[in-house]
Order: sequence, then structure tokens, then C-alpha cells
Amino acid sequence: MSPFASRRSDSVSALGEERLIAAIRRWLGRVAPAAPQGMGDDCAVLPAFPGRLLVTVDPVVYGRHFDRRTSPAEAGAKLLKRNLSDIAAMGGRPRAAVIALSLSPRVSLAWLEAFHRGLAACARRHRVKVVGGDVVQIEQGFAASLTLLGSSGRRPLCRSGARIGDWIAVTGVLGGSLASGHHARFEPRLAEGVWLARRAEVRSMIDLSDGLAKDLRALTPAGGAPAIVAAAVPRRPGASLAAALSDGEDYELLFTLSARADREAFLRAWRRRFPRVRLTLLGRFVPAGRVPAFVLNLAAYHGYEHLA
Amino acid sequence: MSPFASRRSDSVSALGEERLIAAIRRWLGRVAPAAPQGMGDDCAVLPAFPGRLLVTVDPVVYGRHFDRRTSPAEAGAKLLKRNLSDIAAMGGRPRAAVIALSLSPRVSLAWLEAFHRGLAACARRHRVKVVGGDVVQIEQGFAASLTLLGSSGRRPLCRSGARIGDWIAVTGVLGGSLASGHHARFEPRLAEGVWLARRAEVRSMIDLSDGLAKDLRALTPAGGAPAIVAAAVPRRPGASLAAALSDGEDYELLFTLSARADREAFLRAWRRRFPRVRLTLLGRFVPAGRVPAFVLNLAAYHGYEHLA
Repeated sequence: MSPFASRRSDSVSALGEERLIAAIRRWLGRVAPAAPQGMGDDCAVLPAFPGRLLVTVDPVVYGRHFDRRTSPAEAGAKLLKRNLSDIAAMGGRPRAAVIALSLSPRVSLAWLEAFHRGLAACARRHRVKVVGGDVVQIEQGFAASLTLLGSSGRRPLCRSGARIGDWIAVTGVLGGSLASGHHARFEPRLAEGVWLARRAEVRSMIDLSDGLAKDLRALTPAGGAPAIVAAAVPRRPGASLAAALSDGEDYELLFTLSARADREAFLRAWRRRFPRVRLTLLGRFVPAGRVPAFVLNLAAYHGYEHLA
Repeated sequence: MSPFASRRSDSVSALGEERLIAAIRRWLGRVAPAAPQGMGDDCAVLPAFPGRLLVTVDPVVYGRHFDRRTSPAEAGAKLLKRNLSDIAAMGGRPRAAVIALSLSPRVSLAWLEAFHRGLAACARRHRVKVVGGDVVQIEQGFAASLTLLGSSGRRPLCRSGARIGDWIAVTGVLGGSLASGHHARFEPRLAEGVWLARRAEVRSMIDLSDGLAKDLRALTPAGGAPAIVAAAVPRRPGASLAAALSDGEDYELLFTLSARADREAFLRAWRRRFPRVRLTLLGRFVPAGRVPAFVLNLAAYHGYEHLA
């Protein structure tokens, strides 16, 4: 479905900004609390969250993160889910969001309503409140950027922390995200992230957005290199190895386990807690000069490079 | 100065997204801390702020909030200052920001550098860290939206809270913001906001962005109406009464004082603390049916209405 209306009366230009914002608040429903906890004052006033404060910001842009094959409800949910996946990657819990919309005057009101209703349904599932927003007019197109606030326990899981000898693990299956529709229908791994952040043997974590080949670099310790064999990479049915390594938009969790961890006990605990979520030990970090010849040369697989 | 380059080699399209983001972090300097406190991980991890958490989001758009007469440094500072003014209006302290940029491929690198250096200088003055951001490509133009987090003491000052009989006060002078350059050069009233939030006799507050005639409605209690005489409205030299009431972008604080407050003692305390900041008692709220004939009919002055 196209985000753009052919008639002016069906588009956002038919409303002034105040009426548009009132409509957005109506579409969001109870996800958008009234002031002072939400929109309607100079700032939203939130209670202090327990623990550390997590902040992340990610957009969706028509033609890049979704297109007319994506339903507006899926596009709206994707805006939130991309950010939820970042909170999941720190082992945090999502709390509150603000949304900055960039709209051409031709954006369809019906499309924009379905976008917000899809986002609101996802926000309800994850107990996120939308506490603010702004709207700017652009010449063409549709873009939305969401800032998500979350909280984490004493130990947010960062990208750094792995050492040489540590094991590399990944949730789910990889590749073919766009073709399979996974990019719009994935469920962010929030419960898994919270559980992993509580396990002392987990030392670092990232969510896979640009493909394993690129994102794994962020976890690789100085002087180390990943030693992964091709057969270990869990692929989505139909996805090639190259697709699994470099398609991007997997939104799975990639994390590292201490070399001294009891891997069997860890895997048993995982299967008890998440019996339906596949977990794969991909390999481990070895000294950069001692990479066995039979492992994957990840540098040969370009990760997804965003265009400026 | 135009935000757009005539040659591709001078524009953001000459860099990939990764190099552009690296350049932005360099331009921001120590205002943009490294991960995990800032950019470079899935989320920024911030220590919990004392008190309540304040959240606000406001954009600047080329052609609407600034134009080629505005220097890029002023435009960058304005993006932050618009949001600082919202934190000031709650009596809060600013803490951390994230920025969502919408760039056409033609945006000039030199312009964008000066924009970020101007923003960074303002952030240093107010001890704000830029902890995250994203960049999206749009067909034409330049827009940036900033989400600002702050903290407030036990009592953030909201828009609601005034009662019939309460006095209405305003800082500074009003009108002619665009022509005078005030819209880009104002200093947000942060110290004043914190001081006002600590005074028990101050019951409600807003920052003036859409003009007194419109913004005062947000403070007006149910069943009440403001009784203000024209001569009381403090005008910028050269500004007409209509300009002072409806130009917008004043970024002054409008607040209300309890009817029972000792106004003289309050004004003396203000002059001791802020000897150079004009403070004007504009009038008071009266019952809606008993508005004296000689007062201003604010409904006749349209506040600034943003276009969708």
C-alpha cells in the first residue's frame, strides 16, 4: 500500500498541524498518555526508571526500510521494533518513546492512521508509552525517527567485553530477511536479552542489523579473529551462506560466552527457558595470527552499508 | 548561507553513511562521548538522573525555522535551544540529547560541520551530551529533530495549575523575533526556570513559542479568562502590540503567581537574582463572565499556527 494519497482531501495537507497532532494522539490511544506524563506540556514528566537509562534512536524511511509491499501497520510496528531490538541487545527493558515524523503533504491520512495503529499495538505488547513527538513537512516521501528510552539492571551488555577464546553464539536463523518478510514481522528478542544480561558467562552482545559478517566485527576483541565454519551458520530456509552473512535486518542477538563457561549447562538452561528459540554456537575468537585455514573469511562478505 | 552545495564533492553524498557519522562525532567533539555513555553501541547507557525524567522533542527545518540569513552555527544552536527552552519551562536541567537528521544528498559538508560545531558550543555551555543520532536521506531540503532529556526536582512546573485570581507574569520582551534575529540568538531561560520552580507561589509555566495570545490559553484555568491591558505587554523596540501577541518564537517564560502571593516580595527576590532580566506582571485571571471591557481581547490575535 502506498503512503501517498492521490487527492488532497485524503492527505495530511487537508489538516493543520494541530488537528494532525490531535489525530495522531487519537490513533495512538492509551499508548499516548495525557500531560504531564505524555504529550500536551512543554516536556513529558516521567518517573525515574530503576537502574541505568538506555537511549537509542532509529528511523524508518519509505523506499529504504519498507515499501508499498509492507502494510502500514507493519511499517509502524517496524519503527518501534528496530529500536526495541537495540534495547534487547543491551539486556534492557523498554519504557517510553518519542516520534519525529517527516511528511510530504501527500501522505495519506488513512495510511498514516494504520501506521500509528500498528505502532500502538506493538507498543501495548511491550508496555511502551509514546510521550512526545514532532511533525515536519518535507518535499517528498515519508520518514519517521523514534527515540526509545529504556532501563537496564546493574549490568547492561555492551558490544565490548569479549576476549580471545570466548565462544560466539546467535539466536534464530539468518538471511533472506527482506524476501521472507522477516524485516517487518520479526519479534525483538527482549525476553532473551534480559535473560542473557543476567548470565555472568555472557560477556558482550549486539543485535544483528547489518549482517553477521559486519556486526561480528564490533564484538571481536583486539588481536583476535572469529573462527567460524560455514556449516555452523544457521540459515533461513532458502537463504544462501552469503545471504545469511550479509543481508542484514536479521534482528537476532549475537553474543559471546566466556571461554570458561560451562557451555552444556548454559545451553540446557536456554532450552528450558526458550524451548522454541534456536540457539547456535558459531565458533570462537582465536588469536588473529592463528586462524585455521578452513574457517570462513568474513572479510569477503560485505555487510549491509547504509547509504547517506 | 545556503545549506546546499553546488558540487557533489562538497556535499554529504560524497561520504558514505559510516564516514558521515564519524565526521559528525568529530565535529561534536567532547560533547559526544564514546560508548557506552554515547554513540557506538546499540544504546547509550546513562546514569540515572536525580528526580523526574523530562523528555521533549523539537525540530528545525530549513525554510521554516531558519533560512539562508541564519548562520549554520546559529541554526545548530537553535535546534538545541528550542528544546532547552522546553526544559526551562518545566524548571528542569538538561542532560542528554539525540539527533535525527534528514538530509538531501546536496547538503554541504562545510555547512553541516558549522551546524554541528554551533550545536556543540551551545551543548558545552549547558552541559548537554549528544549520546546518539541517526541520518536519513530525503529528496530535498534539510531537517533535524532533537530529543532532549532532562531532570527536574520534586516539582516540575506544568502548564496546568493556575486558578482564577492568579497573576500572570512574563520574562523579557515580546514580538519581532524573526526580524530582530532573536529567534536564532536567544538564550533559553534555564536558570530562571529552575529558580521559578523552587518558588511555591509559582503555580504554572510555559515557554512562549507560538505567541502570548495563543500560549496563554494553555495556562488559563477552566471558567477563567486573562485580563491584561495592552499597555502592560512588554514589547521589543519596534514591535507592534499585534507582533508582541502573535509573532511567536519569543522563548520567554510565561508563568502564574498564586493570588495570595506577596507580589512585592517576589519581584524584589527576582530583581536580586536576575537584575538584568525584565519581569512584567501582565494582569490576572478573572471569571470568564466578568472580563472588564478595557482589557485585551486575545482571541482577536491569532497565535502562530504551524503548517502541517
